[in-house]
Amino acid sequence: MTRLRPTDPSQLSINTATLWESGLREVAEGLCRHGIRGIAPWRDRVAQVGIAQARRILDDCGLSVTGLCRGGMFPAAGAGERQLAIDDSLRAIDEAAALGAKCLVMVCGGLPEGSRDLPAARQMVRDGLGATLGHARSCRVPIAIEPLHPMTTAERSCINTLCQALDLCDELDPDAAGAIGVAIDAYHVWWDPDLQTQVERAGKLRLLAFHICDWLRPTTDLALDRGMMGDGVIDLPRLRSCMEAAGYDGMHEVEIFSKHNWWKRPVDEVLAVCKSRHREVC
Amino acid sequence: MTRLRPTDPSQLSINTATLWESGLREVAEGLCRHGIRGIAPWRDRVAQVGIAQARRILDDCGLSVTGLCRGGMFPAAGAGERQLAIDDSLRAIDEAAALGAKCLVMVCGGLPEGSRDLPAARQMVRDGLGATLGHARSCRVPIAIEPLHPMTTAERSCINTLCQALDLCDELDPDAAGAIGVAIDAYHVWWDPDLQTQVERAGKLRLLAFHICDWLRPTTDLALDRGMMGDGVIDLPRLRSCMEAAGYDGMHEVEIFSKHNWWKRPVDEVLAVCKSRHREVC
Repeated sequence: MTRLRPTDPSQLSINTATLWESGLREVAEGLCRHGIRGIAPWRDRVAQVGIAQARRILDDCGLSVTGLCRGGMFPAAGAGERQLAIDDSLRAIDEAAALGAKCLVMVCGGLPEGSRDLPAARQMVRDGLGATLGHARSCRVPIAIEPLHPMTTAERSCINTLCQALDLCDELDPDAAGAIGVAIDAYHVWWDPDLQTQVERAGKLRLLAFHICDWLRPTTDLALDRGMMGDGVIDLPRLRSCMEAAGYDGMHEVEIFSKHNWWKRPVDEVLAVCKSRHREVC
Repeated sequence: MTRLRPTDPSQLSINTATLWESGLREVAEGLCRHGIRGIAPWRDRVAQVGIAQARRILDDCGLSVTGLCRGGMFPAAGAGERQLAIDDSLRAIDEAAALGAKCLVMVCGGLPEGSRDLPAARQMVRDGLGATLGHARSCRVPIAIEPLHPMTTAERSCINTLCQALDLCDELDPDAAGAIGVAIDAYHVWWDPDLQTQVERAGKLRLLAFHICDWLRPTTDLALDRGMMGDGVIDLPRLRSCMEAAGYDGMHEVEIFSKHNWWKRPVDEVLAVCKSRHREVC
């Protein structure tokens, strides 16, 4: 495995999906106990306490918000449904602004139910992103397109490579004015033969977030069997090095969907392991 | 879904993996009963009866061999193991020649056990292919690199896009002398935003095989939950049209790994459905 300078513990952030069974306060207080400085909440966890209370909880714990999850899911069969998705993403931008989030993560959406028209779905994503970018700019909340693994194309996202995400950024933001970029999740992109080239292409302007976990061997579920850093096959130091060379100096956000393992463990155990693995293998 | 001219039933071929529980003779006789003209055997099914007997069975049934599965699995920790994989692929070339197969399909191999070094694994694949190409040429058996879905990177193949496979072809065969190309499996490549461009790039010279099945929504297993054509979300007519526009005029080989559905059904039922779906939705 690639070796490089040690990780800085102050760069560690935890996505609430890693602690699936916990509410926002429980997660935030856990991070506080473990001296972890960053958090990335999913919107349902924010909604459970309300946005004002969420902001207070995060502030009380001194937490940076590395991203809010999520907007997107743009493709749909009817124009009315597509507008609902856009409206929801506009609200998500407001929420991200209220929380002081570094970005709003966009999970772009897969094929509409019953459709096989992938190019059309991809156009709907482009149109949806385009319809939200102005509001994102005025709220000063960058949109982070998260390319998702090709095994999610049908159901979660038809944006499946970093190249494709950056092509969208270039199309929607041709003057590189910013406010649109990418979230790089190691789990989704580690396999890509074009990864290094595209991370370099993205550069500091477009690299808005860095999510980490690991790809288990074997993987037993397409969505909920992600591994803790170090338990799988991803060369995380190589990817971090590549991100840093391209100018990324943000946090490293641990996002582990793990129904049968990490989600069943106590908060303090999970956070202790995240901290030690971040120090030792990332 | 894209519509185009009807499929020609004489272009239908069945990969023996679609009839997992059956031996070579049972498959061949089934194809004969249903008037299907092509077969693609896995080597274990050939080995069960021996190569000479296999040839007789296929000839008796008047079957074209659209491909032999498989050579490859090149990456390994030690040089000795890597040589074993090369030797095995050389034997596979001999077997493909003895059966009159249109190509030898290469499933290139994933990460060596315990390794996180994806670039090194990809070099091992290049070296392995390079070590077999001369023999393939002298036996007049083209090698068909099959890019596999990125969800197989760790365990089955670190060649995951058509672009990457074609880059290997160009590197190993810079003069386009032939004997190396690609097998396009709809299941593995349907998600690729660069698919049409790369099929065009491949052209008639490099398009050696076309595998069909479908991507189910949802998919419950990373390896053994493929769908029958028409039961999933792949726009097969669009892909066929693209293949034909690029010059492909070979057969359409049905390869369905389906542990909990199609593998449990009688041979005649599976073949009847393959025939009708090939006619109606491909």
